[in-house]
Amino acid sequence: MGTVKNNTSKTGLRITLDFNNLMAESAQGEGLTERELSGTAERARQILQEMQERRAQGQLPFMDLPYQRGMVKEIKEYARTVQGKYTDLVILGIGGSALGGITLHHALHPPFYNLLPPGERKGCPRIFFAENIDPDGFHGLLDILEVRTTLFHVISKSGETAETMAQFLIVKDLLVKKLGKKRSRENLLITTDAASGWLRQICRSEGLADFTVPQGVGGRFSVFTPVGLLPAALTGIDCEGLLSGARFMDGLCKRDDVWKNPAALLAAALYLLDVRRGKRMVVMMPYCDALKDLAYWFRQLWAESLGKKDEVGPTPINALGVTDQHSQLQLYMEGPLDKVIIFIAVKQYQKTLPIPRAYPGLEGLRYLGGHTLNELIAAERMATEYSLTKNRRVNCTVTLPELNAFTLGQLLYLLETATVFAGSLYQVNPFDQPGVEEGKKLTYGIMGRKGYGVKKREIKEGGRKFKKYII
Amino acid sequence: MGTVKNNTSKTGLRITLDFNNLMAESAQGEGLTERELSGTAERARQILQEMQERRAQGQLPFMDLPYQRGMVKEIKEYARTVQGKYTDLVILGIGGSALGGITLHHALHPPFYNLLPPGERKGCPRIFFAENIDPDGFHGLLDILEVRTTLFHVISKSGETAETMAQFLIVKDLLVKKLGKKRSRENLLITTDAASGWLRQICRSEGLADFTVPQGVGGRFSVFTPVGLLPAALTGIDCEGLLSGARFMDGLCKRDDVWKNPAALLAAALYLLDVRRGKRMVVMMPYCDALKDLAYWFRQLWAESLGKKDEVGPTPINALGVTDQHSQLQLYMEGPLDKVIIFIAVKQYQKTLPIPRAYPGLEGLRYLGGHTLNELIAAERMATEYSLTKNRRVNCTVTLPELNAFTLGQLLYLLETATVFAGSLYQVNPFDQPGVEEGKKLTYGIMGRKGYGVKKREIKEGGRKFKKYII
Repeated sequence: MGTVKNNTSKTGLRITLDFNNLMAESAQGEGLTERELSGTAERARQILQEMQERRAQGQLPFMDLPYQRGMVKEIKEYARTVQGKYTDLVILGIGGSALGGITLHHALHPPFYNLLPPGERKGCPRIFFAENIDPDGFHGLLDILEVRTTLFHVISKSGETAETMAQFLIVKDLLVKKLGKKRSRENLLITTDAASGWLRQICRSEGLADFTVPQGVGGRFSVFTPVGLLPAALTGIDCEGLLSGARFMDGLCKRDDVWKNPAALLAAALYLLDVRRGKRMVVMMPYCDALKDLAYWFRQLWAESLGKKDEVGPTPINALGVTDQHSQLQLYMEGPLDKVIIFIAVKQYQKTLPIPRAYPGLEGLRYLGGHTLNELIAAERMATEYSLTKNRRVNCTVTLPELNAFTLGQLLYLLETATVFAGSLYQVNPFDQPGVEEGKKLTYGIMGRKGYGVKKREIKEGGRKFKKYII
Repeated sequence: MGTVKNNTSKTGLRITLDFNNLMAESAQGEGLTERELSGTAERARQILQEMQERRAQGQLPFMDLPYQRGMVKEIKEYARTVQGKYTDLVILGIGGSALGGITLHHALHPPFYNLLPPGERKGCPRIFFAENIDPDGFHGLLDILEVRTTLFHVISKSGETAETMAQFLIVKDLLVKKLGKKRSRENLLITTDAASGWLRQICRSEGLADFTVPQGVGGRFSVFTPVGLLPAALTGIDCEGLLSGARFMDGLCKRDDVWKNPAALLAAALYLLDVRRGKRMVVMMPYCDALKDLAYWFRQLWAESLGKKDEVGPTPINALGVTDQHSQLQLYMEGPLDKVIIFIAVKQYQKTLPIPRAYPGLEGLRYLGGHTLNELIAAERMATEYSLTKNRRVNCTVTLPELNAFTLGQLLYLLETATVFAGSLYQVNPFDQPGVEEGKKLTYGIMGRKGYGVKKREIKEGGRKFKKYII
């Protein structure tokens, strides 16, 4: 396993977790006491120990992804060979096959990336994530593409995700019609399991370009595999920086002392606040447009990993600062004491935007002039944090010194590790999702897949409605 | 007050509410009994009566907006005079000043509207909602605009919203630099209170084009005012259709019989499920890309109207079908029994997308061929609805026969009316938001606004942190 070089130069780019406002000193009775947190410290040390053992036995492969330098090399090599070849990149994938890529795209590309002139994208294609099967949405996407110069990256670990396979069939047919059978292959790229599944079979028999989802890595833990990294590399994102950040965080998350280990601390505090203080909702609220989708990625990670049988599981909620101060804050401030807020702050934005001095006679505008938009967003975050705390609404803040591949890599790895840690505290398996299998079988039944006739009958009979309850 | 003409021809476009799965017959003990719902019928009738009285006294002006034909005429007239003049339309506004317009835009424009060639937008400008003050986001937006041909629509009811005023100052300065003081006025359009506020003063002294937020209509109830309708009209959306749909729904929401009144029924059921069954979260999950932002609009409406002092208030959550089946469904299916799901279904999409038959030898793909994407999304919604219900997860479905201005108008009006109805049940004032005032004052303090020095000192002293709680 590798180590991080140049640790000292990177220390200035370390993200921090400020959990003052999760504690009773700030949030009074709604916060945790040091004693409570220390009480879980022993359990936390055990979990850390178990995690290290499982990891050594290869049972937590997602934790070692940041050290797969060969994988990144392959990805970059592929990206180099196709550079300049495509105008558009479309990812066909849903859930964990899309959310990691979407997060990297929005976090690390300039805003309005797809609207930039090609020159400002440095020869990289526009990028679209087709993560739904709405006929109007998918039709609309195909309409605006130049299909002949579009690379379709099909992602499905199982190789049989109904939504992605349906999209693939539509796109394949379209490509063959436009380019002919042989040439159409150049517009397809597959990422799926190394050996099993329908998509792997197709890949082999048709000789399509392909990458592999590593064994034992599920969709929501796949951002540091070709699932997340290929779309990133194809649009010029610094994949090495991401992995370097993740490795750096790995070092912090191995610390024995729970009070110094951000993953253990975050997981333990959120768990305790749920089971002892009834904070069953976790709001993630970045003060940064580029991290809006991070909250969606986290939402899948936290919900699907921890929401399990027998009615266990906190509910993650996505929000955006300052925007949602004008939408959700009233509820957070005065409503039920059932939420923890995780603020994500960015210390140094890329741009500084001065607010010009004007209207000296108008008191309600004058105070703004001479400041920057940067100061305003920081002031609002501080004001929100402070007034929530004063109202005994627990919250914590993760601060990124700046947003780049290295700091984002840290943040993603921190949240993944905290999730697995929380899984042990909640005593659930964070890597399965048995609750959604039934819906898939019912869908197969309705669509007439062989062997699912019984499901079709079940929904036909069980799904009956009373007319009086439809108005 | 007007009446809806051609009721009969429109009946086929009436949206429906299917609440079977909120009831005990479907969802067992987690659902409501007829007796419970009937028990609130008497209270509901009183509330209906009170609402009609308050409305007659002009205390619920949002309810009469759909009848303001003069307002729509003015809006359309303005839109006509500027047609073809601008390449881009930017709305400077936040919260209720943005969410209505965003909802209409995404619901009624083609997907990827801003990426369409100008010809396909029928001479209408691209549209952008600047609803945050992230310096990188706002800078990025200004970068991609042709500022000289951009209309900036500044929306703030109070005329002193800090975020919007800061954006306005930046844009104003930029316009004056590019176009000169006089010509810059043609690129500004103001919507604010009729008489009061700093923005109204500026409007008057500089002779800017302007519209009015009607008296007594707050941001989250303003979609049927120039706040929502101007951006819509300027981009070619059918405003009359919207209002006609709202009027049609008004008729249904006046019905005395709670069992036939969709607003009363929805509000009563969600209220009872919260207070008697612990369903404190309301998930809105449209199976339609174009309605993704409707869930954001609803989220403000429900949270800010009902989340009030003394820890009252349900938490609304946005989701998207089928996408979130691969992200949130595991939690909804097996996690705590603390949620109600409102599905939004669209019966007839604009496009039909066939899934080609292919790979007859591959069982995991073959069943899809010959169907349409439309059938697949419908099957998944049904399967999800059925499996949630089987697991005693209460849910209801609002079905739009198709998505257009008339049906969307119905849906928006239904949700607004249900919210006010729910306000009476929760015994809160749905029109205020006192909890966010403190944060605004603290922001003023930090930014040095006159008269708020005490707030600056308060946050400086009260916001102290322990270093040991920052890792």
